[in-house]
Amino acid sequence: MRLFDFERAPNPRRVRIFIAEKNLDIPKVAVDLFAMGQLSPEFLAINPGGTVPVLEADDGTYISESIAICRYLESLHPEPPLFGTDASSEAQIWMWNNICETEGFPAITEILRNLSPGFNHRALPGKADLEQIPALIERGRQRAHQFFDRVERPLSASPFLTGPTLSVADITLLTIVDFAAWIDLDAVAGRPALDAWQQKMSARPSAGA
Amino acid sequence: MRLFDFERAPNPRRVRIFIAEKNLDIPKVAVDLFAMGQLSPEFLAINPGGTVPVLEADDGTYISESIAICRYLESLHPEPPLFGTDASSEAQIWMWNNICETEGFPAITEILRNLSPGFNHRALPGKADLEQIPALIERGRQRAHQFFDRVERPLSASPFLTGPTLSVADITLLTIVDFAAWIDLDAVAGRPALDAWQQKMSARPSAGA
Repeated sequence: MRLFDFERAPNPRRVRIFIAEKNLDIPKVAVDLFAMGQLSPEFLAINPGGTVPVLEADDGTYISESIAICRYLESLHPEPPLFGTDASSEAQIWMWNNICETEGFPAITEILRNLSPGFNHRALPGKADLEQIPALIERGRQRAHQFFDRVERPLSASPFLTGPTLSVADITLLTIVDFAAWIDLDAVAGRPALDAWQQKMSARPSAGA
Repeated sequence: MRLFDFERAPNPRRVRIFIAEKNLDIPKVAVDLFAMGQLSPEFLAINPGGTVPVLEADDGTYISESIAICRYLESLHPEPPLFGTDASSEAQIWMWNNICETEGFPAITEILRNLSPGFNHRALPGKADLEQIPALIERGRQRAHQFFDRVERPLSASPFLTGPTLSVADITLLTIVDFAAWIDLDAVAGRPALDAWQQKMSARPSAGA
């Protein structure tokens, strides 16, 4: 088993934190996104989507998409459970993870990719060259604040996003909060529950993964 | 158990097809999106995100996000399995569902919401009023075609998106392909495997759900 990884990108970090929380040791293969390594013919044969992370499983199949990799590792290594322990907790975790995945992540990505000169012509991940749209910077900020407002409520009510224990949804959220700092968006300002939660999450050894 | 539903929207349709494939009978509560019923105080108390579908579980909790609702119903009613039967098939299904969810769905949504006069000031779902950005119409088309190109390959290799049997990822994809017709984007033109798959999927009784 090997993880195709890039140290300085938020999605691979989700998987690295998950691996650390599971106390696993999985060899890594660095894919240099700065050198466009994700678009090399060799890597596109592994993941036609041209994104990292990708897990090469022991049976030789490739799994892309961070959450699918995490779910696979959960199946192989159920302890500690990070996807819930019954139908109800599982549903809440999938719900919040999906909100993070479809609302939080794209908001920050949209700002960065339409703002940073490094993403000129690369406004979306993957193979296509797409031009930046400056109006998306402000829209992204509105979306991001709407998303962070939304997570403040459950974090005010329980220690973690989906209840009393850590789940994969917290890992996804932490990477989004820290990713927001890349574009100078302070997610925790004015959100005391999110602030306390981020400090608690950042103090876990896994946060450095 | 009740499903908060809106007949003419693609995400609730995902859940209705899933329910039909499981041969379940779940009472529905109509939320009229045309009348902005999803933003009423009553509905926002149920789902602060202001989106349908939402499942009210028998324990009184609410589950939003189509894929989380489907996963919950799978836990309660495992047959026929639509989320895989082992770690590897589960991972492939989550992977493809997530690609559909984060690449396919947003591409079509982005075109519709930035094109249709009906979504003026409502360029994203949820509570915030956001202005349309016309440049996203063309970008959305590029994203959509990139996504449909991507699914053509696995559909050329196996009867369903993730292998020999139907999975929840097929249901998500069908709603995207049919949703694309709303904005006059022909997803199957020039994609014979997707075309054959869509015809097969559309012939299932569940497609009318």
